[in-house]
Amino acid sequence: MNAYSSRLLEQCVNELSRLPGIGRKTALRLALHMLRQDDVVVSNLTGAVAEMKEHIRYCKVCSNLSDEEICQICDNHRRDRAVICVVSDIRDIMAIENTAQYNGVYHVLNGIISPIDGIGPNDLNIDPLIERVNSGAVKEIIFALSGTIEGDTTSYYIYKKIREHRIPVSTIARGISVGDELEYADEVTLGRSIMNRQPYESGIE
Amino acid sequence: MNAYSSRLLEQCVNELSRLPGIGRKTALRLALHMLRQDDVVVSNLTGAVAEMKEHIRYCKVCSNLSDEEICQICDNHRRDRAVICVVSDIRDIMAIENTAQYNGVYHVLNGIISPIDGIGPNDLNIDPLIERVNSGAVKEIIFALSGTIEGDTTSYYIYKKIREHRIPVSTIARGISVGDELEYADEVTLGRSIMNRQPYESGIE
Repeated sequence: MNAYSSRLLEQCVNELSRLPGIGRKTALRLALHMLRQDDVVVSNLTGAVAEMKEHIRYCKVCSNLSDEEICQICDNHRRDRAVICVVSDIRDIMAIENTAQYNGVYHVLNGIISPIDGIGPNDLNIDPLIERVNSGAVKEIIFALSGTIEGDTTSYYIYKKIREHRIPVSTIARGISVGDELEYADEVTLGRSIMNRQPYESGIE
Repeated sequence: MNAYSSRLLEQCVNELSRLPGIGRKTALRLALHMLRQDDVVVSNLTGAVAEMKEHIRYCKVCSNLSDEEICQICDNHRRDRAVICVVSDIRDIMAIENTAQYNGVYHVLNGIISPIDGIGPNDLNIDPLIERVNSGAVKEIIFALSGTIEGDTTSYYIYKKIREHRIPVSTIARGISVGDELEYADEVTLGRSIMNRQPYESGIE
């Protein structure tokens, strides 16, 4: 499909089809849809994207997305800041928050250790987590990483670094089928797997 | 899914999920993808959308999308401007152009007559087509509308208005299965259906 009658349209389709999961046919459909919309609808969209891109920040404490220096969760006095749930991705925080079963705070690793993809511990947001634990204010760590070898490797790597503090370290119960992504688990299962978390040592020793 | 930690992110997801076929999970994925991209990649995207929305025009002759007052097809001296192919949608022009089997020009109706959807002849771009035929410069009309009752009704409505000029009026061959959209037909079938177009009268009288 290359017979665009307009260079402006073609350019727009080119840019839209760079997005993940958007092919050229879908991009064309989106572009033509936007042409049919009122100007203000489209400028709201481009404005929201530009504003987000320009002003969004990562929480200084947990690396969650935030509008301020400290995110709403870390900044909430009613949350138990002594309990840290370690996740690989920002979307996992949203999934856990939707269960309404967890009242601690989070730490986002921005990935998991995966030698095949060339991702080592130094590529992840692990050192700031160790520092949080070393500060002495943390009473419990919960790993909520995916149930894959990479997830287990990442948990174990961090566990070794914080073991000396002798604080309870647990991992969410494997109520979710192994290999599935947290993001797609239903809220009841995911909520229960946080309630039924298992002591970390029991699994490996 | 409503536990966005950032109002900026939430706003962006809200706007993206207004697009057709984009749900909130997909919108979130797109927003997070854009956050990971370089600023220039995202500003290219928003810029292309804004520029298209602001500067694109509809061809004064055929209503095709165009960067200029007259589209590239109507403005092309090598095309036979005495043959008009009537389509309901801009995407149908692209589909036919991709067959490289047609050397005439087009006329976009921007829809088809559909009483159920409340679309009558006056809601469509039909009068300018009649004017083009009345001008005397047109020697042939080809209907390339979908093979539905609505498509047939639209062809017949226009046919009645231009019949007096006694120019050949044809409709593309029904090589495409009835009820399918032109846009998804393969290029060979669609190209052949233009080559094998049937005189319009033979079908109705």
